[in-house]
Amino acid sequence: MEERTIQVDLCSTKKEKPKSDQLQFGKVFTDHMFIMDYSDPLGWHDARIVPYQPITIDPSAMIFHYGQSVFEGLKAYLSPEGEAQLFRPEKNMQRLNRSNDRLCIPPIDEEFALQAIKELVALERDWIPASEGTSLYIRPFVISTEPYIGVAPSRHYKFIIILSPVGAYYAEGINPVKIAVENHYVRTVKGGTGEAKTGGNYAASLKAQEMVANTGYAQVLWLDGVEKKYIEEVGSMNVFFKINGEVVTPALNGSILEGVTRNSVIQLLKHWNIPVAERRVSMEEIYQAGKDGLLEEAFGTGTAAVISPIGQLTWNDEHLYVNDGNTGTVAKRLYDTLTGIQYGKEKDPFGWIEQVEEVSRVK
Amino acid sequence: MEERTIQVDLCSTKKEKPKSDQLQFGKVFTDHMFIMDYSDPLGWHDARIVPYQPITIDPSAMIFHYGQSVFEGLKAYLSPEGEAQLFRPEKNMQRLNRSNDRLCIPPIDEEFALQAIKELVALERDWIPASEGTSLYIRPFVISTEPYIGVAPSRHYKFIIILSPVGAYYAEGINPVKIAVENHYVRTVKGGTGEAKTGGNYAASLKAQEMVANTGYAQVLWLDGVEKKYIEEVGSMNVFFKINGEVVTPALNGSILEGVTRNSVIQLLKHWNIPVAERRVSMEEIYQAGKDGLLEEAFGTGTAAVISPIGQLTWNDEHLYVNDGNTGTVAKRLYDTLTGIQYGKEKDPFGWIEQVEEVSRVK
Repeated sequence: MEERTIQVDLCSTKKEKPKSDQLQFGKVFTDHMFIMDYSDPLGWHDARIVPYQPITIDPSAMIFHYGQSVFEGLKAYLSPEGEAQLFRPEKNMQRLNRSNDRLCIPPIDEEFALQAIKELVALERDWIPASEGTSLYIRPFVISTEPYIGVAPSRHYKFIIILSPVGAYYAEGINPVKIAVENHYVRTVKGGTGEAKTGGNYAASLKAQEMVANTGYAQVLWLDGVEKKYIEEVGSMNVFFKINGEVVTPALNGSILEGVTRNSVIQLLKHWNIPVAERRVSMEEIYQAGKDGLLEEAFGTGTAAVISPIGQLTWNDEHLYVNDGNTGTVAKRLYDTLTGIQYGKEKDPFGWIEQVEEVSRVK
Repeated sequence: MEERTIQVDLCSTKKEKPKSDQLQFGKVFTDHMFIMDYSDPLGWHDARIVPYQPITIDPSAMIFHYGQSVFEGLKAYLSPEGEAQLFRPEKNMQRLNRSNDRLCIPPIDEEFALQAIKELVALERDWIPASEGTSLYIRPFVISTEPYIGVAPSRHYKFIIILSPVGAYYAEGINPVKIAVENHYVRTVKGGTGEAKTGGNYAASLKAQEMVANTGYAQVLWLDGVEKKYIEEVGSMNVFFKINGEVVTPALNGSILEGVTRNSVIQLLKHWNIPVAERRVSMEEIYQAGKDGLLEEAFGTGTAAVISPIGQLTWNDEHLYVNDGNTGTVAKRLYDTLTGIQYGKEKDPFGWIEQVEEVSRVK
């Protein structure tokens, strides 16, 4: 890795931190942020940690017009010993560069990006909340900033990392949700940007989400854009089903996001000798399994919720109840194990945890 | 229409205007811009014309993460009498609101948005270049600005209009281009955001465009995302083919952008009693027509180029030459008529032109 240093400009006054029991998701940000610029021919340069502040950007900047952007999401957790730790952050950095490639954004040195995350988290260590289930959400993102409204890859970018203390996803314990199968709108399609973590995929999902939210559903289940037959994701999570003893999840096909939690769940299931398969899964198959009494569990996986059990699936006005609306044993075991590892309360047999070593310079 | 006024804050020093023969597309912007804010429960408010300037925006603003944005593009043309005029601007305002609806952005009063365009163009009248083929490009756009990184429709937006003097698209006369049929990447799919003018569609298109540009092609031809069989668009233009005397263009199907130039071309062809059909058009049909000597013309349509003749289509390593690489007579007639109307040099039988009346207050 090329040797690079991060300039640090500390804020003069610190913000008041929210109380642990009043934390929401993504509304409060810490005292500092990381920024690095890209331009031709300098490449990525001027890496710095600065006080959290608005950015000043030309109204013709490409991000405002053509959506050329990518992002990542991961968390820093506090262990019982007070260590700040990250969960498989190198997977996020790898995906960041896969997303960059799809969006014609120049690659970022993955080790350096991880170093930037660690330095920023170390500096903001006091912002990592300590209560059960809380964490410090880390949002690295790249935006295209060239002041030019032609449709072409930008020649200027900013890579920014911001941090937000977030509350427990399940304030009242892990709770199954109601999901509506989406038959009209699609999130993306093979050949599109579905496997990249880019803004357009999320913008495209808002309308369907808004429509089902009005009728009491937590999320939509996305079907494939070609045949509207095969299951892709649930909301912004990957999805798993336990059918007659076997756990199945849609195989990565070019339009499904490769979730870090998804990958970890598959590894854990294999480790436990629970049969697991990545393959095409049709909605018809799930419906039939439900009717036959073979659909034992269903759950989403993602960084925010870790595991989100599905208690009800509605497809064309047919309601399918999963495990009588209760959290299944596999979902519960996955949740307990993953959060146990993330918070340093359980052994880490796979080496998934990376400590944020205290960086004396910025403490 | 609700009565609204636009506050005007004039700049103290004016920029130097580029010479007419040095104009590029979308790199130079005029002295002023229009901004209007949206927030709950105020709705759209604080409409103002201010000096062109960078905007200051929180790094957590939704536009940087989830791509919730829409835009439009139209032009102001100078007539021989020195009148500034717009071409069917109400169509752009209608489409702006269709895009807003798809992206869960609150609607904008179309008459007021058009008034804002006219006031801004009137103020910047001296920026409309006078040379043959030049114009003042108008870029209205909406960005989501709520400082919140949850996936949900934003509750804060900015509607901004910026202006850019642009050169003649065909500096050396209208010239047919080489197009590559894209078999791997897709722009969008039915149920997605293809018929909305939103950043994500353009971000998704960059990779394919970059790959063909390296091999000498001007644009890609997009096939449908379901069967990769039917023609959708060319680059960011709609596309037409003249086959054995009849002009055909892909029917609007939910994933094709409804172009204002597309609509105008169809109206002109009908007016001229040239057979025209909107229907599904497969690449196989075009290829066969070419082989049979029946493919008489092919051209793209859009605001930037008006008409862009296609001289060569490459599909799976097969090269199809159209009209021996020359501009066809229908394409030429459409180009001459449309630009004639736009620049006020030809009669306007359809009432397509809207004058920008001089607004004394802001002169």
